[in-house]
Amino acid sequence: METPDNATADAPATPDEPTGIAAQTWEEAAADPQYRAAVTDLLGALAYGELSAFERLAEDAKLASTTDDKAELAKMATAEFHHFERLRERLAQIDAEPNAAMEPFAAALDEFHRQTAPSDWLEGLVKAYVGDSIASDFYREVAARLDSDTKELVLGVLDDTGHASFAVEKVRAAIEADPRVGGRLALWARRLMGEALSQAQRVVADRDALSTMLVGGVADGFDLAEVGRMFSRITEAHTKRMAALGLAA
Amino acid sequence: METPDNATADAPATPDEPTGIAAQTWEEAAADPQYRAAVTDLLGALAYGELSAFERLAEDAKLASTTDDKAELAKMATAEFHHFERLRERLAQIDAEPNAAMEPFAAALDEFHRQTAPSDWLEGLVKAYVGDSIASDFYREVAARLDSDTKELVLGVLDDTGHASFAVEKVRAAIEADPRVGGRLALWARRLMGEALSQAQRVVADRDALSTMLVGGVADGFDLAEVGRMFSRITEAHTKRMAALGLAA
Repeated sequence: METPDNATADAPATPDEPTGIAAQTWEEAAADPQYRAAVTDLLGALAYGELSAFERLAEDAKLASTTDDKAELAKMATAEFHHFERLRERLAQIDAEPNAAMEPFAAALDEFHRQTAPSDWLEGLVKAYVGDSIASDFYREVAARLDSDTKELVLGVLDDTGHASFAVEKVRAAIEADPRVGGRLALWARRLMGEALSQAQRVVADRDALSTMLVGGVADGFDLAEVGRMFSRITEAHTKRMAALGLAA
Repeated sequence: METPDNATADAPATPDEPTGIAAQTWEEAAADPQYRAAVTDLLGALAYGELSAFERLAEDAKLASTTDDKAELAKMATAEFHHFERLRERLAQIDAEPNAAMEPFAAALDEFHRQTAPSDWLEGLVKAYVGDSIASDFYREVAARLDSDTKELVLGVLDDTGHASFAVEKVRAAIEADPRVGGRLALWARRLMGEALSQAQRVVADRDALSTMLVGGVADGFDLAEVGRMFSRITEAHTKRMAALGLAA
């Protein structure tokens, strides 16, 4: 189970200094209604993301030609569902109605999956791996900006990702067997990332409180350039991972 | 969460006397190669059944019109996947190759699901509930015929079923709102049971060791009439449950 860990390791560092919120508990931080709104948005977006990841991975599992392969993707799907459950439970704990919190992100996530339905098993594997990795990067980026309680939840969910490493071996083997596959999958990986960024930008434009938090905390004001830098870091990590996988961009 | 438990409670009693195998551990019972083959078949059939239930429930979750409903079906799907994992693990422990053990049952189970793809959310709910209940009944029937170790596994998986009870309320409410729905769903439930029995009979005809065990242990010889009686008990329990649900057969 060799994964290109090196690509992840030197990838998105937590940017600059954490704001004062990182030193606070949820109880303290939530006194600021804008912070409360931002965390509700964040958990809603993550929860809907996990639920739709469950759906799509379960769907993509059908493309498998062996029971083992099918079971591997099904296993990832169930892991995503358990993340969904934890996030939904947390939303309820902080007195947010989970469906209302998820609703603003449904269109962007549904559209992402609609635009990136894999046409075969290898595309499904690359999508599973790319999706898992981008989610990890994003969770890591965002954790630094959160109060200690929310951070613990986000890191807990992050801890349990990485199920996609099985995909790496399979994709490498397929490229070795037929190098032309590499070209096709490299294009596919770029399309996945492009579609993810375009939907993410849509969310950023729509959700002020969330975006403001993502770029360094409510108190520091909103800086679109910083959102851009965060996206750059995630894209860069993605590019390195793809190269390690034999998919030159 | 009112479920028609009474229908389940007076339903399939464990038939007659257990054979001597119930008093043995797996180690002891597995000395008989026919018993070993029967248990391998049983675990293979259950494992494939759980994996395909996962797939179909995840698929049927798409028919939900609310996120809560979707999440309920997704939750059942992940529970089935965890059952699959336990059964597969056990197969490996008893030195059976899991895929080889599952393979003989793939065609019948795939065909069952092909013939019973729900056309709407209510049909999906009824299928989830019926499938869950039949699985419970079957696990209960078969547990009495197993060595103590295999029995513990089967009862452990059984303990964790019953996720479908949420379906009961929803179906009842839909029938109250529009009694004609009841007629349509009653037909559907009968079709589900008919298709399940027809595929089960196909398996019984194909797999001697399994069938022999189902009807009272290897030593007692094969009695087709007893298989029929087991199917009758399960069908009867199903009919009572459907009646309790407002679906007169």
